[in-house]
Amino acid sequence: MRQRNKPWADDFLADNQHIVIPNPGEHKQEWNKLFKNNNPIHIEIGTGKGQFIVGMAKQYPNINFIGIELAKSIIVTAAQKVLESEQENILLINENAENITDLFAENEVSTIYLNFSDPWPKNRHEKRRLTYHTFLTNYREILVPSGNLIFKTDNRSLFEYSLVSFSHFGMLLNEVNVDLHAIEDPENVMTEYEEKFSAKGQPIYRCKSTFNQAGTKGF
Amino acid sequence: MRQRNKPWADDFLADNQHIVIPNPGEHKQEWNKLFKNNNPIHIEIGTGKGQFIVGMAKQYPNINFIGIELAKSIIVTAAQKVLESEQENILLINENAENITDLFAENEVSTIYLNFSDPWPKNRHEKRRLTYHTFLTNYREILVPSGNLIFKTDNRSLFEYSLVSFSHFGMLLNEVNVDLHAIEDPENVMTEYEEKFSAKGQPIYRCKSTFNQAGTKGF
Ligand SMILES: C[S@@+](CC[C@H](N)C(=O)[O-])C[C@H]1O[C@@H](n2cnc3c(N)ncnc32)[C@H](O)[C@@H]1O
Ligand SMILES: C[S@@+](CC[C@H](N)C(=O)[O-])C[C@H]1O[C@@H](n2cnc3c(N)ncnc32)[C@H](O)[C@@H]1O
Repeated sequence: MRQRNKPWADDFLADNQHIVIPNPGEHKQEWNKLFKNNNPIHIEIGTGKGQFIVGMAKQYPNINFIGIELAKSIIVTAAQKVLESEQENILLINENAENITDLFAENEVSTIYLNFSDPWPKNRHEKRRLTYHTFLTNYREILVPSGNLIFKTDNRSLFEYSLVSFSHFGMLLNEVNVDLHAIEDPENVMTEYEEKFSAKGQPIYRCKSTFNQAGTKGF
Repeated sequence: MRQRNKPWADDFLADNQHIVIPNPGEHKQEWNKLFKNNNPIHIEIGTGKGQFIVGMAKQYPNINFIGIELAKSIIVTAAQKVLESEQENILLINENAENITDLFAENEVSTIYLNFSDPWPKNRHEKRRLTYHTFLTNYREILVPSGNLIFKTDNRSLFEYSLVSFSHFGMLLNEVNVDLHAIEDPENVMTEYEEKFSAKGQPIYRCKSTFNQAGTKGF
């Protein structure tokens, strides 16, 4: 997801620190203070241009959404969407998800969304996939015990890999869809990538899973 | 899979009791005596017209294959294929897989194949699906500890259901394919249904799983 360089991005971010939170690690365990309520926190990793998180925030006003996006040139577009939406239940973090346990405390998060994560198809890049077991260890740490990991992708190999990775980590698969748009799910909020790939007729895959399998704690 | 009634079926079966074994329960724990060797035993449930099991038996001469098929009018076609193949590593059983623990002893089977099992789409028929947990309990009993359950289907809903069922039973998913024919798998032997549905461009789904997840024994 390349974009032209945006020289105004730094200025924009400086002006919108109420949306894209600087020094996010300082708010670990205290995100709800920023939202000024005790609603459950859902996070999206790799928020991209923000269509999903803004759509979700509108649909679920009693949930606090936090989007994490690595690329500064992309998160500014998401921030603009958040601004326009006037939703008060969305914050953004310009960070690498590798550091997620520096951002959230144990049990601080109720649901994690992974949407169209980079596939890293080469075997030697397996460790970079957001469903690799080192990432799963971190997700488990920040999620409440029955918290959900909800993963959507158009990428067949990443999906197949991820189901096996979840299973070997001792996670429970609670719902699997191998062609999400073949069914009607009125609650499904589409991401930018989802719109693009489903318009081309490609199947969209989704898996909802939890870490709370009795008797196993994975690795 | 309906076929015209075959009045000659009983005669044919009477003449071919070395292939379609009568009173199969009597051979529980002693199937290898019939094969006259100690090779591992792989079974297929719902063998249909036998294309898969005959193809597999040719490809793996050092494995003993047993096909279980409920319908007499269908198993005769499979038996004819076995006869023509002259393979000595195939036997057939005309039985309902519900009774599988009457047919095989604990640890007698190395691999179970479920190929294009009837989908039973209605919720109230869930118990009839060959991946419902009561069936899984029986498969676990007859399989060696690290034995495989290999499931192929064209039916999206049954596949999605089955992955969740396997996971909730504490099984390990070791390989998942959501479009088997998109990759080259020279070892894949197609079933009749697989040939028909993949020729129509439908994706074929496959999952390879085991029951040996550390620390869990399912239900
Ligand atoms: C393929 S895009 C998908 C964007 C959006 N989720 C969608 O579905 O349209 C993946 C996004 O994840 C971001 N990303 C990749 N790795 C990341 C990481 N380790 N931490 C945070 N964001 C990451 C990328 O910058 C990119 O914006
Ligand atoms: C949809 S057909 C698939 C046949 C073949 N496996 C294929 O892939 O071409 C399902 C087959 O399973 C058989 N079958 C269904 N339930 C069964 C059961 N409980 N025990 C044994 N066979 C069963 C049916 O008679 C039918 O031949």
